[in-house]
Amino acid sequence: MDPRWSELSARIGAEKVRPWDPETLGAYARDESGLGAHAPAAVVFPSSTEDVAEVMRFASAHRIPVTPCAARTGKSGGSLPLPGGIALSMERMNRILELSREDLTLVVQPGCVTGQVMAAAEEAGLFYPPDPNSWETCSIGGNVAENAGGPRALKYGVTRDYVLGLEAVLPSGEVVRTGKRTIKGVAGYDLTALLVGSEGTLAVITEITLRLVPLPREIRTALCIFPDEGSAARAVAGILGAGILPRTLELFDDCSIDASSRKGPYRFPDGARSAILAETDGDEGEAVMRQLERLGGIALESGAIDVLVAQTETQRRDLWATRRRVSEALRLLHPLKVSEDIVVPRSRIPEAVERLKALGRTHGLTVATYGHAGDGNLHANVLFDREEERPRVNACVDDVIRVALDLGGTITGEHGVGLAKRDFLPLEQGEGLIGLQRALKGVFDPLGILNPGKIFL
Amino acid sequence: MDPRWSELSARIGAEKVRPWDPETLGAYARDESGLGAHAPAAVVFPSSTEDVAEVMRFASAHRIPVTPCAARTGKSGGSLPLPGGIALSMERMNRILELSREDLTLVVQPGCVTGQVMAAAEEAGLFYPPDPNSWETCSIGGNVAENAGGPRALKYGVTRDYVLGLEAVLPSGEVVRTGKRTIKGVAGYDLTALLVGSEGTLAVITEITLRLVPLPREIRTALCIFPDEGSAARAVAGILGAGILPRTLELFDDCSIDASSRKGPYRFPDGARSAILAETDGDEGEAVMRQLERLGGIALESGAIDVLVAQTETQRRDLWATRRRVSEALRLLHPLKVSEDIVVPRSRIPEAVERLKALGRTHGLTVATYGHAGDGNLHANVLFDREEERPRVNACVDDVIRVALDLGGTITGEHGVGLAKRDFLPLEQGEGLIGLQRALKGVFDPLGILNPGKIFL
Ligand SMILES: Cc1cc2nc3c(=O)[nH]c(=O)nc-3n(C[C@H](O)[C@H](O)[C@H](O)COP(=O)(O)OP(=O)(O)OC[C@H]3O[C@@H](n4cnc5c(N)ncnc54)[C@H](O)[C@@H]3O)c2cc1C
Ligand SMILES: Cc1cc2nc3c(=O)[nH]c(=O)nc-3n(C[C@H](O)[C@H](O)[C@H](O)COP(=O)(O)OP(=O)(O)OC[C@H]3O[C@@H](n4cnc5c(N)ncnc54)[C@H](O)[C@@H]3O)c2cc1C
Repeated sequence: MDPRWSELSARIGAEKVRPWDPETLGAYARDESGLGAHAPAAVVFPSSTEDVAEVMRFASAHRIPVTPCAARTGKSGGSLPLPGGIALSMERMNRILELSREDLTLVVQPGCVTGQVMAAAEEAGLFYPPDPNSWETCSIGGNVAENAGGPRALKYGVTRDYVLGLEAVLPSGEVVRTGKRTIKGVAGYDLTALLVGSEGTLAVITEITLRLVPLPREIRTALCIFPDEGSAARAVAGILGAGILPRTLELFDDCSIDASSRKGPYRFPDGARSAILAETDGDEGEAVMRQLERLGGIALESGAIDVLVAQTETQRRDLWATRRRVSEALRLLHPLKVSEDIVVPRSRIPEAVERLKALGRTHGLTVATYGHAGDGNLHANVLFDREEERPRVNACVDDVIRVALDLGGTITGEHGVGLAKRDFLPLEQGEGLIGLQRALKGVFDPLGILNPGKIFL
Repeated sequence: MDPRWSELSARIGAEKVRPWDPETLGAYARDESGLGAHAPAAVVFPSSTEDVAEVMRFASAHRIPVTPCAARTGKSGGSLPLPGGIALSMERMNRILELSREDLTLVVQPGCVTGQVMAAAEEAGLFYPPDPNSWETCSIGGNVAENAGGPRALKYGVTRDYVLGLEAVLPSGEVVRTGKRTIKGVAGYDLTALLVGSEGTLAVITEITLRLVPLPREIRTALCIFPDEGSAARAVAGILGAGILPRTLELFDDCSIDASSRKGPYRFPDGARSAILAETDGDEGEAVMRQLERLGGIALESGAIDVLVAQTETQRRDLWATRRRVSEALRLLHPLKVSEDIVVPRSRIPEAVERLKALGRTHGLTVATYGHAGDGNLHANVLFDREEERPRVNACVDDVIRVALDLGGTITGEHGVGLAKRDFLPLEQGEGLIGLQRALKGVFDPLGILNPGKIFL
C-alpha cells in the first residue's frame, strides 16, 4: 500500500481511511450525473472538523486532490473524485447540533440527510423550506454546496436564503467561521454567500447554521390538468401575473405524464397532455383554500380540462411521490437520458416549452420537460435508447442550452456546473467574469487541491 | 490646476469633473456617520458605465484612490473620500431602465433614490420591500453597497434578497455582469452576493437587476404601548414565538419616546415608557386584521397598557414619520450622539435592552435604544452634550459592542463597517477570516485604489 495512506491513517485513525477495497472505491466513483465511474485512490470518512483539517493539511503536503462528497445525488458531477485523489465523504458528520425555537435557528453537521433537517424543524413547530426532490436521500451539506432549490423555492427561496453562517475548512487546513447566528448582519464581505453554491471547490463545509421560519399551518394541493402544454404554460404566467404566490407550481409535459402514468402511484386521466401540481399555504385554512380556488379558476380560463383538489393527505402524498419519480419514470419510455436544468425568465416559459419540443423534432429525439415552472426552472430531458445516439443527443443538448441563453436564462438553476456543464459556462459568462472566479478560487486554494477542474478548468 | 484633472476632463467631459470649487468638495466630504470632513481632491459625476470605466482606468494609471458615493446618508463613513482622492458620485446615473410585470424584475441605475424604486414597483402593482428609513433620500446603489435593511426586513429580508444581478466596473476599468435575470440560477460563484454589502471596495456598481414580489393588498398597523422596556421586549419574543410573522416590529425605548413626543407628529400618551410599532400584511383584509389582533393580544398579555390600531392612512403615516425621525429627535435631548447598529439573537433582546440601559448608568450617559427589534437589530445611541465627553462616550460605545458580541450578535446589522467600525471588526471575526477578505479585495483591486482603508486596513 502507498505509504501516504498509512500516514493519514496514523493521523486520523485507520477506520476512517479506505484506500484498498474496490467495492468502496467503486461506490464513491459515481454520482447521479450519468458521467460514468471516476474512482478515487482512497475514500476518507472524517468524523470531526479536526479530522477534516488534518486531511486537508495532509493533502496539501502531498498535493493530493480532495473532492468532498455526501450523498452523491448530485446531477452535475461535482462529487466525482479526481484520479489519484481522495473522496472525502462527509456522511459520518451527520448530527443535528442545536435547535433554538426562540431564535429560529438550527445548527447541523453537513452529513445530515435533508429530510432529517426538515423533520427536526417540524418537530419544533418550525419550517425549513428548501425541498430538493431528492430530500429523502441527499445531504444538507450537498444542498449548501450546490445551493439546491426545490418546488417550494417559488415562494420560499433556495438553500442560500436559509444559511446564516458556516464553519468551513480551507484547503490549507485552516478552520474559518463565516456569517452570523442572527438574521441580520453585514460585517465584512458575505463569505457565507460565496461558499454557498461553490460546489466543494473553495472549502469543506463542516457546520451549518440555518434560519428557520414559522411552519405554515395549512396547505392545500391541486392538480390542474391540461389538453396541451401551451395552455399549462399560459396558466403559470396567468397565476403569477394575478399576484398569486403559491408555494409550488410544478409542470409536467406530455412525456412526463405518459411516463408517470406508467410508474404511478398517481395515474393521469385520458386526455391529460400537460399538468400543473400547485400548492398554496398559510395560517388560515379558508384563505389558503380561496387562494387555491383563484389559482384553479385561472387554470380553467387558460384551458384546463380539470382541476382536482387533493382531499386527503394520502392523495396529496401520492401526487408528490409521482412528481418526485418523474426523473426515474422517464427511463420507462427510453432507457437513456441527459437531463438539463435550465432557467428562463417566467414570461418566456410558453416559448421555452414550445422550442424545446421543437428541438426534439429537429434532432429526431424525444425531449421531455418538467420541473419548477413557477420560477422558470425547467428540467429538459433528452431521451434516447442506444449509446450510438450520443452524438445526436449531444447536439440536441447543445441546442437546449442555447435556447435557455437565447431567452435570457441560465444554464443551471439548481444542479450546478460541476463537470457536466463546465464547457457551457463560457456561453453564459464572459471571460472576465470567469477569470475573476478563477482568481477567487486561487485565494482559497492556492495549491489547487480542492476539487480542481470543477465549474471551470 | 493639477494637469491630471484636465486629462480626465478631456476623457469624459469637463462638466463631469470638479476639482476646484470648495463648496462641492466640502459637500462631498461628509456623510451621516458624524466622522467629520474628509474632502476629496475632485468630485467626478459619471453619466454612463463607460464614464465610470474611463475614470477607473485613469485612476489606475495615476494610482488615485476612488470612493464611490451616492446620497451620502451612510452611517459608517463608507462614502468618505480619501485624501487626494476622487469622490465618484453616482447621482447622475439615476434612471429606471426597465420593469417587467411578467418576470417581476426591475432594472435600475445605482443613483435612483430608493423611494423612486419603490414607487416604480408600486405603479406596476408590484412591491420592492427593502425600506431603509432613509428611503426618501438614500440611493439604491448605496443600499446595494451597504446591503441595507429596514423595518420590513423582518418579513421580507434585506437588499441582498432582491438583487438578482449586477453590472459593475472593476478597479481596472473592466466591466463585468454578474448574476442573472431569472429568480433561480447557480452558474459559478455567487459574485452578486459578494458585491452586495462590499461598501464600494470591490467594484463600482453601475446597473442593478432587482427582483420584485406581488404587492400585498392589505396592511394593518398598530402601536402597542408599554409601561417599561422589559414588557415590550418580552412581547417581541412572545409574538415571534407564537409563529406570527408581522411585516414590522419596531421598538422604542423610554428616551426614544421622550424625544419623539417632542418632535412629533405623533405624541405618545403619558405613562408610555416603551412601544412597538407593528404592521401585518397580506391579501385578505380580515385575515391581516386577525393577525394584528393576535399580535395585540400577546402585547397585552406581556403587559401593554394600550394597543392603538391606526384607523386612517394619515394616522399610519404619522406613526411612521415619527419612527423615521427618532434618530433626529434624539438630538432634542442631547445635541451629540454616537449610534451603534448592533444585532443580537432575538431570544436575547430583553437582556440586550436591559444591559444597554445599565451601560448608560455605569458610564453616566444616556443610552437610547430603538430599532428593528423583530430581527434583533437594535440601534443603541449614546447621547451626550459636549465634545469633552468623547472619551467617556467611546468607552461606553466599546461596551455596547461587547454586549452585542457577548450575546452572540454582530457589530453591524445594516449600516456597514466603513471607517466607523473598522477597529471593531477583529473583535467579531478571526484573523483568518479577515485575512481571507483582504486577499479577496486584492483580487478585485490589486492596486488598492478603490475605497482603500474601509472595512479593514
Ligand atoms: C431524483 C433526484 C431529484 C433531485 N431533485 C433536485 C431538486 O429538486 N433540486 C435540486 O437543487 N437538486 C436536486 N437534485 C440534485 C441533488 O440532489 C442536489 O444537488 C443535492 O444538493 C446534492 O446533495 P448530495 O448530498 O447528494 O451531494 P453530492 O452529490 O455528494 O455532492 C454535491 C456537491 O457538493 C459538494 N459537497 C458535498 N458536501 C460538501 C461539504 N461538506 N463541503 C463542501 N462541498 C461539499 C461536492 O463536492 C459536490 O460538488 C436531485 C437529484 C436526484 C437524484
Ligand atoms: C435617518 C437615517 C435613517 C437610516 N435608516 C436606515 C435603515 O433603516 N436601514 C439601513 O440599512 N440604513 C439606514 N440608514 C443608513 C443609510 O441610509 C444606508 O446605508 C444607505 O444604504 C446609504 O445609501 P446612500 O445612497 O446614502 O449611500 P452613500 O452613503 O453615499 O454610500 C454608502 C456606501 O456605498 C458605497 N456606494 C455608493 N454607491 C455605490 C456604487 N454605485 N457602487 C459601489 N459602491 C457604492 C459607498 O462607497 C459607501 O461605502 C439611515 C440613514 C439615515 C441618515
